[in-house]
Amino acid sequence: MMMQKQNNLLLERLGKGACAAKYKLQTLSEEEKNRALRQAADGLLADQKAILAANEKDMDAGRENGMHAGMLDRLKLDGSRIEAMAEGLRQIAQLPDPVGRELEAWERPNGLKINKISVPLGVIGIIYESRPNVTADAFALCFKAGNAVILKGGRDAIYSNMAITASIRNSLKKAGVIEDAIQLIEATDRETTAAFMRCKEYIDVLIPRGSAGLIRAAVENSTIPIIETGTGNCHIFIDETADLTKAVNIVVNAKTQRIGVCDACESLVIHKNIAAQFLPALERGLADVHDVEIRGDKTVCGILPQAHTAQDTDYGTEYLDYILSAVTVGSVEEAIAHINRYSTHHSEAIITENMQNAEKFKQEIDSACVYVNASTRFTDGFEFGFGGEIGISTQKLHARGPMGLRELTTYKYVIEGNGQIR
Amino acid sequence: MMMQKQNNLLLERLGKGACAAKYKLQTLSEEEKNRALRQAADGLLADQKAILAANEKDMDAGRENGMHAGMLDRLKLDGSRIEAMAEGLRQIAQLPDPVGRELEAWERPNGLKINKISVPLGVIGIIYESRPNVTADAFALCFKAGNAVILKGGRDAIYSNMAITASIRNSLKKAGVIEDAIQLIEATDRETTAAFMRCKEYIDVLIPRGSAGLIRAAVENSTIPIIETGTGNCHIFIDETADLTKAVNIVVNAKTQRIGVCDACESLVIHKNIAAQFLPALERGLADVHDVEIRGDKTVCGILPQAHTAQDTDYGTEYLDYILSAVTVGSVEEAIAHINRYSTHHSEAIITENMQNAEKFKQEIDSACVYVNASTRFTDGFEFGFGGEIGISTQKLHARGPMGLRELTTYKYVIEGNGQIR
Repeated sequence: MMMQKQNNLLLERLGKGACAAKYKLQTLSEEEKNRALRQAADGLLADQKAILAANEKDMDAGRENGMHAGMLDRLKLDGSRIEAMAEGLRQIAQLPDPVGRELEAWERPNGLKINKISVPLGVIGIIYESRPNVTADAFALCFKAGNAVILKGGRDAIYSNMAITASIRNSLKKAGVIEDAIQLIEATDRETTAAFMRCKEYIDVLIPRGSAGLIRAAVENSTIPIIETGTGNCHIFIDETADLTKAVNIVVNAKTQRIGVCDACESLVIHKNIAAQFLPALERGLADVHDVEIRGDKTVCGILPQAHTAQDTDYGTEYLDYILSAVTVGSVEEAIAHINRYSTHHSEAIITENMQNAEKFKQEIDSACVYVNASTRFTDGFEFGFGGEIGISTQKLHARGPMGLRELTTYKYVIEGNGQIR
Repeated sequence: MMMQKQNNLLLERLGKGACAAKYKLQTLSEEEKNRALRQAADGLLADQKAILAANEKDMDAGRENGMHAGMLDRLKLDGSRIEAMAEGLRQIAQLPDPVGRELEAWERPNGLKINKISVPLGVIGIIYESRPNVTADAFALCFKAGNAVILKGGRDAIYSNMAITASIRNSLKKAGVIEDAIQLIEATDRETTAAFMRCKEYIDVLIPRGSAGLIRAAVENSTIPIIETGTGNCHIFIDETADLTKAVNIVVNAKTQRIGVCDACESLVIHKNIAAQFLPALERGLADVHDVEIRGDKTVCGILPQAHTAQDTDYGTEYLDYILSAVTVGSVEEAIAHINRYSTHHSEAIITENMQNAEKFKQEIDSACVYVNASTRFTDGFEFGFGGEIGISTQKLHARGPMGLRELTTYKYVIEGNGQIR
C-alpha cells in the first residue's frame, strides 16, 4: 500500500515533468532537435564504460535467474551494439522533421483561412519488454517528432535502461534541451505498470510493444488511448494461377527468413487446384533452409504425408516458430473469407497471375498491408522507406501498419480571421 | 443475471451482423451508396406516420416522467423535422466518397509499388443521448464512408429510434443493400451499454457522443478504441493590442450565440493593459444580447462591480450557460500557460493586432482548433466545409477537431511486387 502510494507519486512527478517538457519540445527547430540527437549519439559512445557495467549487472541477474541463452543474447550490450545505437540516433537526425508540415489549407466563403498543420502528439508512453537498444531508439523517434517520452522497460534490462537514459539526459542538458524529454520509470513491479496505463492526465498516447499478454493488458486496463502493435498471424494465399517458383520463394522467405517477427508468414491458404503441384515444391524449397512443421487440413495431409492434422486453433495461431498452418480452398472468395476470419489484420499476400483475383484480394482483405506477389516480410518501417519505426499498428485508429516519424504526430487546425462571427 | 446473458447474446448477434455487413459495404460503389441514401430519405418521408406515432409514445413517457420543456422539445418530431432528416441524408449523398482515395504512392528501390488507400473503418459503435435525428444522421455519415454502424441511443427516444431504424433498414433492403449496415441496440439498461463498450471483437471504433459522464464512462471502461468528443472549455485571449470592436463582437458571439454547444466560449483571458478598456465595453456589448454572469479575478472584479469572484474551479468549468470566467495576465506567455493548463484542448482564440503574439499563440496552444481574430464557434464540420460532422474530437489520436466523412475512414497499404523477397 505504502509502495503503491510511492509509485503513484513517482508517476505524478514523471507525468508533470513530461507535460512541462512537451510545451518546450514542440517549439524546437529541426536543427535544435538534430543537434541534440547527434549529441546523444556521441554521449552514448562516451558513456560506453558505464553502460556496459550496468548491462553486466543485468546479465548477472539474468544468469542467476536462469535466463536462457537467446534471451541473454538479446539483453547483452557490447561495443558494437552501443555503436549501432549511436548510429541509429544519427540516422534519425537525418530524417525530415515531421512537425510543422502544412497538410491542407483552404479558405471559406466567409474569409476564414483554415490550415491543417502537423504537430507533436505531446507525451508518449512506451511499455516494452525487449532489448535495451529500444530505450535509445524509441526516445529518438519520439523526440524527433517533438514529443516527450516516458519509458517503461522490462525488469531484466533495468540497469542498462537506466544507464542509457542517464547518458541521453546528460547529452540533452549539454545541448540545452530539457532533460525530461526522456524519462524512465525505474520501478519494475506490475502495479506500477498498471498505474502507468491510467495516467491519462499526463500522457496523450500509450504504445505497448511486446508480448500478446502485455498488449491485452493495455487494451483491458489503459484509460490512455493506445496503439496496438505487433501481433501478426500473416497469411499467404496461393491462387490457382500462381507462378510456382515465385510462390515457393516467397513462402520460404516469409516463413523462415526470421521466425520471431510479426510479419513472418504463419498460415498458408492454397487453391485446391494447385495444391498437388505447389505443396511438394514448397516442401523441397523449405528442406533446403530449415525443417518446418506443416499443420494442414485433409487435402494438405493427403498430399504431404509428413504433415500434421491442423486443429481449428492452429488457423488462429501466431507461432513465431518453424510451424506453418495450411488450408485448401476452392476460390479466391473462400480464401478471403478464411483470412478475414483468422487474421490479426497485419499483413497478407496473394500469389497469383490472375489480375482480377489480385484486385479482389486487394480490395476485400481487411489488413494493414495487402501484398500481391511479394513476401509479407516487407511490413517494416525501414523496408517502407520511413527510415525507422516505432512499431507496426494492427488497429485502425490513427495509424495502420508500419509507424514512422509521421505517425508520431497529430495535427491541429489554425484558423485566421479578421473578426468573423457566426 | 438472466437479463445480462440475454443482452450479451443480443450484442453478439448485432456484432456478427455488423461484421458480415462491413465486408459487403466496403465494396459498394459511390453510386450504390448514394442511391441507398436517397432511398432512405424517401423512406423516412413515406414512413412519417409510423415514426410520428412512435415519437408520440416517447413524448408520452417523457411527460409522465416529468421531462422538462427543453428536453421535450429536443425529443419531439414533426413533419418538418422528418423532412430535415431526409434532407440531411440527401446532402450526404452529394458529398464526395471518402473511400478508395490514393493518399500516397511510391516505389521502393527493389521495385515494390506501395499505395496508401483510404478504406472504411469497418464497424463503428455510436453511443448518444441526444435527439432522434442523430439516428439517421450518424447512420448516413458512417454508411457513406462504407462502415456498418451499431447505434445505442438514449432511453428517452427508444421508440423514435426504433421506428427510424426500421424505416432505414427497409429502404436499404429495397435498394439491394445489406440491412445490417444499421442496427440499433433496443435494450436501454446501463449493463448493456457497459457490455457494448467491451465488444472489441466486433467493433473497430466507438464514438461516445453526449454528456461528460458518458464520455468518462467510455474512457474508463471501453476496450474498443474510442474517439473522445465534445467537451469544450474554450478560451478567448484578449491581447493588449486587440481591436476592441472585434474583441467585443467575437466574445459576445462566442458566448451567447448558442450557449449549450461545445465550441461556445467559457473563459476569457485578458491582458491587464487592456482590461480597463475592454471589460466595460464587453459588459455593454453583452447587455444588448443577454445577461451574462462574469466570474473574475481581483482585477476583473475591480473593473466590473457586478462581477463575481472566481474560484479556481471556475477556470476549469464548461458552463454551457450564460456564465463566463475571466482572468487577467501580464503577457501572451502567461495567457498560453493558463489556457494550456485549464483547456480541454478543443478551441481557443487570440484577439490581437500583434502578429508575433498571434504566431506564438498559434504554435504553442495545444488545442484542436486555434483561432486568430475569429469566434471559436466555427469549430464545426459544416463551418469547416466538411458537409457534415459526426462530432468534435478532443483527443489526439486519429482525428482532432471536427470529424467529417474522411475521419470515418482509415487506410491500408497495398503493395504490388513481382516475386520480391527479403
